[in-house]
Amino acid sequence: MTLTPNPAWDLTYQVDHLTIGQSVRVHARSARAGGKGVNVARVARTLGARSTAVLPLGGALGGLVADDLLEDRLPSLIVPVAGPTRQSVAMVPRDGAHPTVVNEPGPELDDAEWADLIAATVRTVGEAAPAPSHVVVAVCGSLPPGTTKDRTTDLVRSLQATGAQVYVDVSGPALGWAAEAGADLVKPNRSELAEATGTDDMVRGAAELLQHARSVVVTDGERGMHAFVAGPQGARLLAHARLPEPVVGNPTGAGDAAMAALAASGAAPWPRRLALAVATSAAAVLQPVAGAADPQHIETLLARVSTTTEK
Amino acid sequence: MTLTPNPAWDLTYQVDHLTIGQSVRVHARSARAGGKGVNVARVARTLGARSTAVLPLGGALGGLVADDLLEDRLPSLIVPVAGPTRQSVAMVPRDGAHPTVVNEPGPELDDAEWADLIAATVRTVGEAAPAPSHVVVAVCGSLPPGTTKDRTTDLVRSLQATGAQVYVDVSGPALGWAAEAGADLVKPNRSELAEATGTDDMVRGAAELLQHARSVVVTDGERGMHAFVAGPQGARLLAHARLPEPVVGNPTGAGDAAMAALAASGAAPWPRRLALAVATSAAAVLQPVAGAADPQHIETLLARVSTTTEK
Repeated sequence: MTLTPNPAWDLTYQVDHLTIGQSVRVHARSARAGGKGVNVARVARTLGARSTAVLPLGGALGGLVADDLLEDRLPSLIVPVAGPTRQSVAMVPRDGAHPTVVNEPGPELDDAEWADLIAATVRTVGEAAPAPSHVVVAVCGSLPPGTTKDRTTDLVRSLQATGAQVYVDVSGPALGWAAEAGADLVKPNRSELAEATGTDDMVRGAAELLQHARSVVVTDGERGMHAFVAGPQGARLLAHARLPEPVVGNPTGAGDAAMAALAASGAAPWPRRLALAVATSAAAVLQPVAGAADPQHIETLLARVSTTTEK
Repeated sequence: MTLTPNPAWDLTYQVDHLTIGQSVRVHARSARAGGKGVNVARVARTLGARSTAVLPLGGALGGLVADDLLEDRLPSLIVPVAGPTRQSVAMVPRDGAHPTVVNEPGPELDDAEWADLIAATVRTVGEAAPAPSHVVVAVCGSLPPGTTKDRTTDLVRSLQATGAQVYVDVSGPALGWAAEAGADLVKPNRSELAEATGTDDMVRGAAELLQHARSVVVTDGERGMHAFVAGPQGARLLAHARLPEPVVGNPTGAGDAAMAALAASGAAPWPRRLALAVATSAAAVLQPVAGAADPQHIETLLARVSTTTEK
């Protein structure tokens, strides 16, 4: 299961050339349900996992998100909220340069809505077959504006109380809060790790999160991924996986694909899981949109991943 | 009445600083029903005219536009169409620099929808009190993608057949088409006039449009406005009106305010109408949003407008 506490209606505009301070006409437009958890659910399904996306939705754009999930036949658990679901707008120039993106902050959730969101998720995990202990709940993306440390702690602990594993990929201070609440896995990239822990040293940063979190996967772009658990001297490196050379494409959603691979491979040994995460992430880069990865690409890339394990 | 064939849901995002190729977070967000005809109807109402906005709407954003008009208590005649109403996104930096705007093209209307739009407008004009001949229909903004010359001609002539006056402020080649169809007034700015007629000479350009159109008002920013009708030597200048110095503010919607003043003052002499258009347009510049003008500002500015009439 994936939980997307602050989903978005993702718009992509093709424009000739965007110039600051001027008006530009949109040549082509695409739109789809977005938010990291939605991307994770889509890729997890591609990997053969049964996945359900849990998300609060409201307003006109919330309706469009719900329609899009339905059309994509992605199982979803929708918790209605009063605030209107946000949109993000990516303006992509025709010359292939990096998109310019504006992200709305999204609605605040009141106490009752936050409680509803947790309760609906907990209920669904509780009904999972064969047992809640086989479920991974991936909490992904930004949290709604105004989300406190207490709410974050409550979220992680309520989900764990069902017996499910809780994996977290959230931005800002919530990453540290989720780790402190004892999340089963947190998955920052290098800069998120540095921001959350105040150190550029990956091993020290991971050690800090591992004071309470059970495992940490740090993604580092073309330099691959590192998996850590707590050890006698702080963080113990379980595995490092990377491709011999980077793939070229659209990096949006690469981290979500890695999360999907980690969530879908919980029973496998760590080196194998990390290699799958690297291959799936690279396969996502080859796709023009986030939330997609071609199984053929994953297989081909997996054969090229080199994995170093602990000595 | 105003007809907005391609309305929009206008979003305004406040951002710290927009950088091409980067992601930025929206700090504040406002949204309202947009499209030039909607702005014209709002300002015409401020000027004391009874105004009705006619517009085709569809999709989720069409619903938001309809809700906003209702909340603003602006009488509207909504023609449902299949295509989803477009949005425009204006990104306004905090330092007060010019906004960066992306405009979606909007939906095409099929033949039946276009006929519905004309028929609904004609019917409403026909029921107008005291008589259709007292009605001005201002056709404003972009036309839907794929609108042909035949459709534009049919629009102007069908509306005129009711006895109403048809004023036109549309962009692109449709401006020339509407003039050729015999519109009662066309209102280009200098660059639109040049684009439509192929000449930078304002008098010659106006003369070209006046081969069929009954009057032409050319807006020229801080240099004021010129009103022309056909004369023995081409275009005959009826009046020129301007302020002694420019007002500083938000120019979006200034042209719509001018159109509202012209439409609301049809019975007055030309110099008076043009002075009101200049004052209302300047009052709109003083407002942070398009479609608004303060009656006090209009009155103060009107006293400062200098008007030159024909010799």
